[in-house]
Amino acid sequence: MEFNVSADLVYNAEEAGTLVLNIRPLKVIKETLLIDPRTINYVDYFSDMNRLLMLPVSEPGEIRISYNATALNEFNYVDFSNLGPSSISQMDPSVLLYLNPSRYCQSDKLLRFTMHLFGHIENEFEKVISITEWIYTNVEYLSGSTTSGTSAYDTITEQAGVCRDFAHLGIALCRALDIPARYCSVYAYNLEPADFHACFEAWLSGHWIIFDATKLAPLNGFVKISMGRDAADTSIANLFGKIIPQSTNINSYKSQGVIEPVFYYPGSTIGLSYIE
Amino acid sequence: MEFNVSADLVYNAEEAGTLVLNIRPLKVIKETLLIDPRTINYVDYFSDMNRLLMLPVSEPGEIRISYNATALNEFNYVDFSNLGPSSISQMDPSVLLYLNPSRYCQSDKLLRFTMHLFGHIENEFEKVISITEWIYTNVEYLSGSTTSGTSAYDTITEQAGVCRDFAHLGIALCRALDIPARYCSVYAYNLEPADFHACFEAWLSGHWIIFDATKLAPLNGFVKISMGRDAADTSIANLFGKIIPQSTNINSYKSQGVIEPVFYYPGSTIGLSYIE
Amino acid sequence: MEFNVSADLVYNAEEAGTLVLNIRPLKVIKETLLIDPRTINYVDYFSDMNRLLMLPVSEPGEIRISYNATALNEFNYVDFSNLGPSSISQMDPSVLLYLNPSRYCQSDKLLRFTMHLFGHIENEFEKVISITEWIYTNVEYLSGSTTSGTSAYDTITEQAGVCRDFAHLGIALCRALDIPARYCSVYAYNLEPADFHACFEAWLSGHWIIFDATKLAPLNGFVKISMGRDAADTSIANLFGKIIPQSTNINSYKSQGVIEPVFYYPGSTIGLSYIE
Amino acid sequence: MEFNVSADLVYNAEEAGTLVLNIRPLKVIKETLLIDPRTINYVDYFSDMNRLLMLPVSEPGEIRISYNATALNEFNYVDFSNLGPSSISQMDPSVLLYLNPSRYCQSDKLLRFTMHLFGHIENEFEKVISITEWIYTNVEYLSGSTTSGTSAYDTITEQAGVCRDFAHLGIALCRALDIPARYCSVYAYNLEPADFHACFEAWLSGHWIIFDATKLAPLNGFVKISMGRDAADTSIANLFGKIIPQSTNINSYKSQGVIEPVFYYPGSTIGLSYIE
Repeated sequence: MEFNVSADLVYNAEEAGTLVLNIRPLKVIKETLLIDPRTINYVDYFSDMNRLLMLPVSEPGEIRISYNATALNEFNYVDFSNLGPSSISQMDPSVLLYLNPSRYCQSDKLLRFTMHLFGHIENEFEKVISITEWIYTNVEYLSGSTTSGTSAYDTITEQAGVCRDFAHLGIALCRALDIPARYCSVYAYNLEPADFHACFEAWLSGHWIIFDATKLAPLNGFVKISMGRDAADTSIANLFGKIIPQSTNINSYKSQGVIEPVFYYPGSTIGLSYIE
Repeated sequence: MEFNVSADLVYNAEEAGTLVLNIRPLKVIKETLLIDPRTINYVDYFSDMNRLLMLPVSEPGEIRISYNATALNEFNYVDFSNLGPSSISQMDPSVLLYLNPSRYCQSDKLLRFTMHLFGHIENEFEKVISITEWIYTNVEYLSGSTTSGTSAYDTITEQAGVCRDFAHLGIALCRALDIPARYCSVYAYNLEPADFHACFEAWLSGHWIIFDATKLAPLNGFVKISMGRDAADTSIANLFGKIIPQSTNINSYKSQGVIEPVFYYPGSTIGLSYIE
Repeated sequence: MEFNVSADLVYNAEEAGTLVLNIRPLKVIKETLLIDPRTINYVDYFSDMNRLLMLPVSEPGEIRISYNATALNEFNYVDFSNLGPSSISQMDPSVLLYLNPSRYCQSDKLLRFTMHLFGHIENEFEKVISITEWIYTNVEYLSGSTTSGTSAYDTITEQAGVCRDFAHLGIALCRALDIPARYCSVYAYNLEPADFHACFEAWLSGHWIIFDATKLAPLNGFVKISMGRDAADTSIANLFGKIIPQSTNINSYKSQGVIEPVFYYPGSTIGLSYIE
Repeated sequence: MEFNVSADLVYNAEEAGTLVLNIRPLKVIKETLLIDPRTINYVDYFSDMNRLLMLPVSEPGEIRISYNATALNEFNYVDFSNLGPSSISQMDPSVLLYLNPSRYCQSDKLLRFTMHLFGHIENEFEKVISITEWIYTNVEYLSGSTTSGTSAYDTITEQAGVCRDFAHLGIALCRALDIPARYCSVYAYNLEPADFHACFEAWLSGHWIIFDATKLAPLNGFVKISMGRDAADTSIANLFGKIIPQSTNINSYKSQGVIEPVFYYPGSTIGLSYIE
């Protein structure tokens, strides 16, 4: 499917600095980027699974970024009804680093907690479905309840947060069960209020399967921007120097028609795997 | 009932300092205290619900403390089968401070967690029984798994600890449900291996009711040493200056005969309340 | 000196509950308290060094509290220029509990940090002056930078906070140096913007000496409301049930004339000790 | 230079599982690996800057690994005496991810702390020298004082730790100053007692420069095993299933002759950069 996505961002540079933006989808058909003032010469580059824009800001002033793209959203359905046991030694070595604990996903501290809640479930897809259902049921979606310092270790007990916190907790719980998991920053269809969104992927039987414990947007309406270990790797904007965010306006529409929204439920056996 | 309790403690003072011991039961019939070297003149005093011994150590050397006491253990049984709803405004004001979060019992961070697990239970005695059962089932008793810095906030997710950690978690969960709770340092009958022990009390319907989520020793075999907000208030020994613990030998026996051990179980409706 | 202090507080009770207020000065000459609706029958009581008002709220609705008092502010000056070494064993036992770590003052984790920065200073008054100067220099006073969960352990590294955080850090650093310290909730003269304020007291040579690392208000212009281990003990309002703060309006004026403001500076040798 | 390094490791598998070892130097001339029992067929693979061995363990029992290698240690000296100011926008994009906070290096929480201590230093090499000197002076090297959960955020205040903690703190402080930094796991010449060692690299003027705040081993005697964001990425052994470490015996010798040990000191202007 094709989606039209856009991000209008305004920053105020109080001094010279650098702005690193992570807003371009991974699969773009066409795109336009306007930067005001036009004197800013950005550089774009890949860093792992991020398509970054680096904007050196040489003097104080307001910076307006207007980005539009037509992007592809492609995925497969994977049937996990007969998923057999998994083994570390049969995993693709490139995914093993997604078992490591990271800044916001301290899976190393959650081994017993996770084992008690989910250790008895055999099918790993069902395990991750149970994890997202547990988060959805126990964690309250509450804007402003957390900060950029909040991590899965906080959210598991404080039980309030936003999409970023839901994703971090899902990732941490998966890793604690030896399921590789990574963070996804996305444009999301039908998200209310419209904004950037975060969800996560778990490595199941050779596929990165998408999950979203917030259930705020359909799983088949994401346009992926970047993937990484957690939000530390996939920040929408990294600000070096005194550059202050002023406003954000994000949109994501289907190019034509509407989509039939897909969500998982307890008992779901079919997963969605986005094509990279 | 009468119990004979004893504590043989050895410290090595590498320099002058002060040793504050908190080993005397609250209800003593008779006691003996030997301190070697005899030149140490201790002072004893009350501080809230602690009977402290302050030993100024004027020079380096080994310090041997040998304490024996015959102590009373007196309690009532309280029937909670028809316990009605409780209200903050009807509580004795003196217990309200036991609702405050403390160093090792960060109840303020556990409100949602606690509400999700125990909020639906109406009878408050049943609530605390459920809390101790949840701790007993989910937290592994594992010597050496925690340090003096470990708090309830750690234990709730890491799910391993010793008696002190079990008590801290019980207290934190009670306070998060608006049930006043305090830490008890005790001599425990039949504890294996023999050592000082920790449990907690919850304020229910006008009584301090004893609970022990470790289930390692009978509830009716405790000789109370001190009560406080948490282990920070009730340390067996506070060491000021370089005074290093060398060895500890603790015992607790019934003066005559044996006791019929009492434990709570899911469904218990009778609580034990120690007489102060 | 006499001060006129007032607190106008508005809450919205979404359901029945209990409101425990801690707004009455410890040394009141006269006072008036208006509660609207008048059907709320409050109870007042002492809890340690807090003069609490307990208001049972039986039904939903807005609650307006209007409190005015004429209060005494009395203190002595203590000269510490020749302060000799202090010893735990010569302290009044009743102050030893203010050496214990507490919810927001984890002094047990700061022993080496404190020793490295302040261990070389011999005069204990000078030590605490150095602590407050260090906090004043290194921690940024930044409204909104912290939450009710922020503790001294956070502030020592994150180095931003409000009066409460400054006080917690001062207390934690004192206790780590074996200096008893406690939290003070006060009305403050000349505080901009007017609000409740927090500072701390350290036990030096038999006196509770007042300190304020924010330097936002004169040390001789405080009207003490309550003292305790930290903010957990001295909350202006404890809200049980869904009672939501709406607005706060605090004032503190000298009854007649103005005061000559007193602050400490590096090199100060005279401390202020409030008379209880 | 050539070094002979060896690692003899014994594990006890209580059940089937997988052992992932990260013990092979990055620049090996020749090597031998003996695994007992011989039925274990390992797979070796690269994952970023790690040369991993994956050993699937199919049944319980003791596993003995005996690894020997002749490895190269090659480095350049880089003169930083005239180092000009650095700019994010001129950095190689591939190093920017080493500015992100990670599991054990929460640089995002240390911005003010770091700015206060090191912000005034202009030359970035001098900055990192100052960071390592500060760590060396303030943090006590104390075996057993920390656990696998300890992070830079703990060490900065608790000020005790082992090589891993020293490296984590160095990395976190660099990143907080916008200097990319990464963790190095190494064999170290002349380390007492012999063991695996950890240090860190900072990205300065286009070079990864090696630093070691422990000063326990010469900077020119390292044989690099792996680099990563922190210890989470570079674990010597990742154990999946109940596989328990039994013993470790590590050695590192120069193939011929001895080395003239190199350390940095306050005022040093020449850095070492290992050739990858």
